[in-house]
Amino acid sequence: MNQRSRDDLEVFHSSSRHRDRADTVVLVAERPGLVRRANGMRVVPDHPLDDHPPLDVLLIPGGAHSRIEAEMDNPAVTDWIRGTAGTAGSVTSVCTSAFLMRATGVSLGHRVATERALEDELQQLGDITAVRDARYTGDGNLVSSQSVSAGIDMTLWLVGRLPGRHHARAVRQSIQYEPAPPYLADEPV
Amino acid sequence: MNQRSRDDLEVFHSSSRHRDRADTVVLVAERPGLVRRANGMRVVPDHPLDDHPPLDVLLIPGGAHSRIEAEMDNPAVTDWIRGTAGTAGSVTSVCTSAFLMRATGVSLGHRVATERALEDELQQLGDITAVRDARYTGDGNLVSSQSVSAGIDMTLWLVGRLPGRHHARAVRQSIQYEPAPPYLADEPV
Repeated sequence: MNQRSRDDLEVFHSSSRHRDRADTVVLVAERPGLVRRANGMRVVPDHPLDDHPPLDVLLIPGGAHSRIEAEMDNPAVTDWIRGTAGTAGSVTSVCTSAFLMRATGVSLGHRVATERALEDELQQLGDITAVRDARYTGDGNLVSSQSVSAGIDMTLWLVGRLPGRHHARAVRQSIQYEPAPPYLADEPV
Repeated sequence: MNQRSRDDLEVFHSSSRHRDRADTVVLVAERPGLVRRANGMRVVPDHPLDDHPPLDVLLIPGGAHSRIEAEMDNPAVTDWIRGTAGTAGSVTSVCTSAFLMRATGVSLGHRVATERALEDELQQLGDITAVRDARYTGDGNLVSSQSVSAGIDMTLWLVGRLPGRHHARAVRQSIQYEPAPPYLADEPV
């Protein structure tokens, strides 16, 4: 599957280093070959869809709309997501993957966040509530976020829900997530 | 080379989509084989050290201290960084790669940021000023940042320095970088 932001994985990775148990981040894909990410980086899946360790958290990555739409029509992927969602503790989406999540049926009737520019489009599909003006939203075992960088806030929140907020605060400190985005003001040059 | 955060690459990728020219993000490595990132993801280099397109920006990724130290004693890598630094518009480091950057000599006599917990260690090496309490610092064509997530702020700042701040603001909007880290307060559960 196509992928965009991966600092959300960095949150999980840092989290595992602060716990007694060794959590593992694995990349599951339909085929064993290379996957080219939207930003050009080529990554190698760790496991195929039919042979991977149990997943506490399933993160469905976002990506270009065309690639997400291709997977929406791919039963191998949608069936796997649907089955995994029934056993995973949490099922999460970032940005455009909210559309893939909906196509599997697991988010029907639920509240879901997506990229701000796509909220209307998601809402119009029906049987779903596109949550506005929230970086991320949780509903049952579903957690979904706005685009790219919102995945960092979502995964950090999730890490606080699972091992606890004191743990999440340690993770935040270790990845030095004290954001200071430049150019928020339109100051003179 | 080992890698940690890659949302800094996402900043460059989004930047290229908002420009007339097609900027490209490439991964350059000493050997053609797979590189396992600190978070477990396996990535494939695009180019070897001796055959890659000209680099406007060289980003030296951080990672586990032991892996950075191994590269500090690897002339193939340090010579390449030194040579590339002479032609690239900007040379950047994130977190522990400040130590690799120093080992190449290119940051001697300069002001450099690194992970907060390593500032003293960097300072004690001498011939360098470890900048305290700054997400990132620029000095000449060197730009360095604190750890992991600080690389996002650094690369966004750099994107504003190159094509301009209006461009950087468009990139920030497109990756929805409006951070809202949870658990900043120690509120009751």
